[in-house]
Amino acid sequence: MKIDIALLPRDVTMGDLSDKVCIVLDIFRATTSIVTSVANGCKTMVPVLSVEDALALAGQIGPVLFAGERQSIKIEGFDFGNSPFEFSTDKVKDKTIIMTTTNGTIAIKATEGAHHTLIGSFLNAKAVCLEAQKYGKDILIVCAGTDGLFSLEDTLCAGLLVQLLHSEGETQMTDSARGALLMYTEAKDKLVETAVDSRNGKRLQDLNRMDDVEYCFRIDTLQVVPQYIEGRIILNENTI
Amino acid sequence: MKIDIALLPRDVTMGDLSDKVCIVLDIFRATTSIVTSVANGCKTMVPVLSVEDALALAGQIGPVLFAGERQSIKIEGFDFGNSPFEFSTDKVKDKTIIMTTTNGTIAIKATEGAHHTLIGSFLNAKAVCLEAQKYGKDILIVCAGTDGLFSLEDTLCAGLLVQLLHSEGETQMTDSARGALLMYTEAKDKLVETAVDSRNGKRLQDLNRMDDVEYCFRIDTLQVVPQYIEGRIILNENTI
Repeated sequence: MKIDIALLPRDVTMGDLSDKVCIVLDIFRATTSIVTSVANGCKTMVPVLSVEDALALAGQIGPVLFAGERQSIKIEGFDFGNSPFEFSTDKVKDKTIIMTTTNGTIAIKATEGAHHTLIGSFLNAKAVCLEAQKYGKDILIVCAGTDGLFSLEDTLCAGLLVQLLHSEGETQMTDSARGALLMYTEAKDKLVETAVDSRNGKRLQDLNRMDDVEYCFRIDTLQVVPQYIEGRIILNENTI
Repeated sequence: MKIDIALLPRDVTMGDLSDKVCIVLDIFRATTSIVTSVANGCKTMVPVLSVEDALALAGQIGPVLFAGERQSIKIEGFDFGNSPFEFSTDKVKDKTIIMTTTNGTIAIKATEGAHHTLIGSFLNAKAVCLEAQKYGKDILIVCAGTDGLFSLEDTLCAGLLVQLLHSEGETQMTDSARGALLMYTEAKDKLVETAVDSRNGKRLQDLNRMDDVEYCFRIDTLQVVPQYIEGRIILNENTI
């Protein structure tokens, strides 16, 4: 099994993804919030790029809730921003939520055509690795980055996933996978401090969202594996 | 002073480079060979993309030598391949060498318009950092990568440069600079072993060029700083 990391969505090779399992990471905060929301019973999350797309889609699919942020701040009139703490069971259970994100949505859509696309985070690291391995395919971890720039927090999580996948069996790592593993190994005992120095970590700290930073770096607290299929995110049928 | 790393030439921001000092790294083996060659008295090295460009240019500028490889093997009829051991004083002193490389040339040309473009490697790590700092500008380290893919050895060297630059004064690091620093810090006591596991390291090992791998990871053995200016590489006037 080969493990590769696309450090940015544009690094996803243009080749055939149909024989690969992709894991998408947007740690601050889209995929962390998606994993939390699905763990709390959300039925479907639909990632879209813009507010206009969200509104147009809502007109087609019926009663929905809206989630979205711009520059880490909730879009006016929306039901949720992008903090994982907002997606509590009482608010999300059995709901369909349309979520507008830029980086996360671009990363998810970059994997279209993959054998499977799974949604990862620190919270469900082990669960998403176990699920990804089941298919016996090569694994491509896709980091969302931020506005086309490398994001430290996404790559640290990718490094954790490489460590978990590598410890489970014979793997071949690409250079980016080896690099992310080195990065994670060096930072693993100081993840939150490292994250606070990152660009997105600093911004969240400035917005008094250190609770979000700390939450996003909790490892293996959730066992769910959301899956992206036909334009929407649902609970993978193999997970409970 | 801000320190940024472009993990690939395409990550060089399209913005204004005129206020930045760039350091280009192509560890296996273009920039290592350039630094070696200039240290051994080579007058000028001209990086070009193709054999055709090399021959056309030779017709314009007079007596030259040719260096170049494809898939790590010397181009037939050329004077040098791309092993740093070939660029010995008796062969390069006072010569002009046209060098065809793909990754290195793309990386160097991506910095056109920069305040200064310097050629870096493990060999001249400290020297290139000292030179880069002299200008009081933000520093962008450009990793050549390999055929558009992330290269571990380039990013490890970038991490060393970040460490050196950071230890010398107040710096702001971007996420990619922090990531490379973490990577280097974890790998610094096992650089050659780490490099041998990389894609290019494996290829050189398969070609029985472990001497090259080890040479390319020698730190601070040379004090020269080649500079790219007006299409050619010469010894920076401040270094001896």
